[in-house]
This record gives sequence, structure tokens and C-alpha cells, in this order.
Amino acid sequence: MFNMTAVLGATGAVGSIIRALMEERNFPTKNIKFIATARSAGKVLKYAGRDIVVEAVSPEAFEGVDLVISSTPDETAEEWVPVAVSKGCIVVDESAFFRMKEDVPLVIPEVNPDDIMKHKGIISSPNCSTTQMVQALQPLHAFGKLTHVNVATYQATSGAGVGGQRELVESSKAHLAGEPFEAKTFQYPIAFNVIPQIGSPKDPVNFPGYTSEEVKMIRETWKMLGDDSIKISATCVRVPVENCHSEVVTVETEKKITREQAIELWKNTPGLVVMDDLANHVYPMPSICSGSNDTYIGRIREDVSRENGLTFWCVSDNLRKGAATNAVQIAELLAKKMFG
Amino acid sequence: MFNMTAVLGATGAVGSIIRALMEERNFPTKNIKFIATARSAGKVLKYAGRDIVVEAVSPEAFEGVDLVISSTPDETAEEWVPVAVSKGCIVVDESAFFRMKEDVPLVIPEVNPDDIMKHKGIISSPNCSTTQMVQALQPLHAFGKLTHVNVATYQATSGAGVGGQRELVESSKAHLAGEPFEAKTFQYPIAFNVIPQIGSPKDPVNFPGYTSEEVKMIRETWKMLGDDSIKISATCVRVPVENCHSEVVTVETEKKITREQAIELWKNTPGLVVMDDLANHVYPMPSICSGSNDTYIGRIREDVSRENGLTFWCVSDNLRKGAATNAVQIAELLAKKMFG
Repeated sequence: MFNMTAVLGATGAVGSIIRALMEERNFPTKNIKFIATARSAGKVLKYAGRDIVVEAVSPEAFEGVDLVISSTPDETAEEWVPVAVSKGCIVVDESAFFRMKEDVPLVIPEVNPDDIMKHKGIISSPNCSTTQMVQALQPLHAFGKLTHVNVATYQATSGAGVGGQRELVESSKAHLAGEPFEAKTFQYPIAFNVIPQIGSPKDPVNFPGYTSEEVKMIRETWKMLGDDSIKISATCVRVPVENCHSEVVTVETEKKITREQAIELWKNTPGLVVMDDLANHVYPMPSICSGSNDTYIGRIREDVSRENGLTFWCVSDNLRKGAATNAVQIAELLAKKMFG
Repeated sequence: MFNMTAVLGATGAVGSIIRALMEERNFPTKNIKFIATARSAGKVLKYAGRDIVVEAVSPEAFEGVDLVISSTPDETAEEWVPVAVSKGCIVVDESAFFRMKEDVPLVIPEVNPDDIMKHKGIISSPNCSTTQMVQALQPLHAFGKLTHVNVATYQATSGAGVGGQRELVESSKAHLAGEPFEAKTFQYPIAFNVIPQIGSPKDPVNFPGYTSEEVKMIRETWKMLGDDSIKISATCVRVPVENCHSEVVTVETEKKITREQAIELWKNTPGLVVMDDLANHVYPMPSICSGSNDTYIGRIREDVSRENGLTFWCVSDNLRKGAATNAVQIAELLAKKMFG
């Protein structure tokens, strides 16, 4: 078991769930500390019946810590994760900053657990919309070898943090009252609207016209499946949903995968739940999947437009399996590998 | 000019816009009458400054009428459109009921205007989510021959009529107040949720696992483009948006179409507006396209996953170009062909 685990970004939307999950799953650590930016320092948080005072981030805060679970913006991670590593910590990092670095494993415990011990101090947890898709793709790839993946997302406002969630509620109230609303977190008011942009244009040489979120879905999938020969395209769209990302995924495989085979593969994969009975209106939706640590798959059908095509709908709680749950699971797997 | 035009379903969500458009565009008819079910009969509606009393639908209501623009549920169309035709009317029908019949032209005036005069009394206007997609596809098909089309939709609640619009507002208010809400129009509460089902399972032999809305997007596209060799797949999803359908469309063509060529083709197509500058957050959205008669295209990019692939985002007012506007345009085109 770890001696001292620190949660960096402990007061954020994801950090709060990390704390709750650690407590609920009896996370294997003797001691715990919560670290945040100066703004949140001094707050008192409950953990396992104890009061814990949030510390301001500083080099000294990482002294004596052996594990850090970190959920912060990229810039914060860029600054503080290397400091933690220099103090001897292993860092499980939620941010995008280190994910694509060569010596940083990018891990979903159900997908590529063996990559974890290749770490040099940092283990990254993938992008929320990528995690749920790769969970669904991995057994298909192992069975029939993916050649093409096409995804369109329906992403919740909680993916943009507490500010995103608040902005959905506030802009919805304003819209219903017929009042104007000025967007801050999103490019435009998200209430009763959809916005076809998440992130900014990035890597215009390799991915012209794609956003950073779309490029993450491509590159991170390649890295975790260990196969960049898979042709992937993504379009990421923000929808007025508080929590849970949904995705329409179409794949093509070298070897045909029938609907029945896909269902069998997914039913036998930990972390996945098949919810598929269209005639009886059974399929996953944000309204029923929020709060769960699993990823849900429905609307499973052989694609009528491609010989070896398969189409499905996939929903997961982006704050949980898309972020907090995956990070805690990585840390648990690490504990198992390190301490047995 | 027509002698007597009747609007059947004149009091519905689409019927109201049909009336407004006819007035605004000075529709070429000497006389007009509004017909609806008995429930709405007797209502007084304004048209060009005059009061017009809504008549209850009956065989006699169609006497002396030469053109009917009809927007009703399928069952109503099935019952009354043939009655109108038997009375000598030409019917421009919004419903799905006659669209796929061999002797019924299915028309978007900008796409296949010449099909219109093949009618035997009925001309159908296509499904809302299909119309905007086919408007975008037609110039691509003419230029580079489509081989594959894959679409994921983000469909507004107004597509389910006045009841759908009301249910979005009411369920949103209930959700924000923390109160329970029982869905009637949709399968589940749509507020802050997405529902991956529009229509019901249909044609399980040819399209197993697809819904009726998805099959419409495939079959109607084939009919209007006059080419059922195009491989098409669709996934239709309801989103908590009041009005305007949005779509992520990925196509593959025999001949490569660059982003620049696609923009050029679309800019030269009546009814289409290109709105594409990702770096400056310029792309179509329901919040800005509602109330327009055009179809908007953005996020245009060559697909990184397919040699001759192109991906784009398409938004249109489903009550207007997706329904009322297209029907009125068909009727105007008919007038031009008949009366010059």
C-alpha cells in the first residue's frame, strides 16, 4: 500500500469524484493529502470521517508523497507534475499535457494494463471521449482488426469542468426566461443549442480542419491500441447535457464482426455494459448512465453501407470512467503491481 | 396562377409556417382555404389581411380546389390525400406516406426539379433530416460521384411537432426545478439528455437494427439522387434543441473532392450557405440558423481516414427547408411549370 497519496486538483469537478471514489473503494494508502491552487487552499474536506485541510501547491507539498493523482488544467500539469516527479512521486495525471510523450504510458486498465509499468514517473489517463470509445474498440480490434473508425460525439458540458456545468444551467434559465446570456466557458450559449467545436484547430499539417479534441481521439486511440495503421476520423460536438458523453461510432474490420459476436465480445469485457433492445426503447442515454463507473453500448448493428462495418452508440460518465474512475483504477492497478 | 389553394393541416407547427411563407412570398393563387381536423375547425386565421375560418376536413372541402399543400401525420395523409386527388387536386404532401411510391415524385426544387412533372396527383416533400443532407450531397455527387455516405444527426424537438417543442420546454423547467417529468411525445425526458432513437425499427430484412427515420434518410436520398448504388448509413439522435437539425456527414467519392472544391460547389448552389472558419468560431448552429430558409454548411474538411473522404457539418431549420419552405417551393415550381 502507498504511504502517502496526494490528490492534486482535489477541489475540482473531477477531483471531488476522485476523493469520493478513493474513500468508497478503500484506496490502498496509509495517509492522504489534498493539494490545490492557492485559491482553494485552507478549505476543509472530509475523507473517511476525518477533516483534511487543502494545501496550496508548492514543491514542499510533494515531500514524502509517493503517489499523486492529479486532475488539473494542462498548464498546471506542465508546471507541477515534473516537480512532483522530481520529489520522487509517481504521478497519475488526468491532463492532456503528457499523454503523447513517448516515455509516458497512456492507460485504460481494462485495455492496456501492461503498459503501466513502463512509466518513468508519469502515467497519463486518456481524454474522456477517447476512453469510452477505446474501451469499446479494443475487443473488436483484438477479434477482427480495425481498419477504419469514424466517430461523431455528443459531449456534455461537465467535460469543461464546473464552469461548463454551471454555464449550461444558467444559460438554460436565461433562455427559458427570454433573457440574454453571454457565454464564457463555451464559444456560444450552449442552452438549447449544439456547438460543433471542442478545443481549437491543432496540428494543421497532419489534421487540417480538425480540433484538438478530435486529434486527441485519433492519436490517443492509436497509442493505447498500439496501432497507428487504423484510419480514424472524429467530429466532436458539445450538446446541452450536464454529464455523460455519447458517441456514434462506425468501424470497419478486416474480419467481419456480426452484431451477435460484438455483443458477446463486449459482454465479456470488464467495464462494459451492453444495453441494446431498440424495439423496447432500451439503449444507453446520459439520463440513465450518469453516476456509473461503466461504459454502456447500444444501437449495435451491422453497417448497411460497408461489408465489414459495425455501428454502435456508446455512453459513459465523462467525469467518472472518462476521468476520475480511470485515474483511480490506474492507481489501484499500480498498487497491485508494486505491492501485490 | 392557381384558382384555389388549400392548406391541409393549416394549424400545425409546419402548417403555420406554410401560411406565413405563402403570404410573405405572395404565393400565386387567387383564393385560399385552410383545412384541418375537426378539433381545429372554426378557428379564424389571418391571411393577407383577411380572416379565414378553418374548415373541417371532408371530401366536400376539396371541391373546387386545384392545389393542396398538406402537412399532416402519415395516417391523416393516407386517408385524405387520395380523396383530394379524386376531387381533381394536385397535392404537395409533407407526410412520409407517399414518398417512396413509384409514381410519386419526391422533390427538392434545387436538387431534382425535373421530377416534379412526373406526378400523378401527388408530389411528396422529403423527410426533414434528409432534405438538408441531400441539398449538400447533390453537387458533390454531380461532381465526384458519391460511393459512401455516413451521417449522425442531432435533431431538434420541433421535428416531433408542437408537442415536441412544448415537451422540451416543460421537461427543462421540471429538471431545473428538480421535479419529476413524464415524457409523452418522446420515449424519455429529452431535457439535458440525448435519445438515440427517432422512429421505430422498420424493414428488419433490409435494414436490421435501423429506425424508420434512418431508413428514410437512406431510401429518400437514393430516390432523389436517382442512384441506389450509393452506400448510405445513418444514425438519428434527438437532442434538447428547440429547432434546427444538425448533422455530421462523411462522404467518399469516386473522384477526389478537395475542401476548396467542395466550398466552391456549395457556394454556387442555390439554397446553400457556406459558414466555415473554425479558427474564428464560424460554423452553423441551431441558435443562429433557426428561422432561415437556407441550409448551412461548415466544419468542411478532407477526411483524414479515407483517401477520397470529405467531412462536414450541416444545419437547417427543419420546420422551414426541412418542411414548410420546401413544400411551398415545390408548389411555386409547379405553378411556374403549369402557368409559366
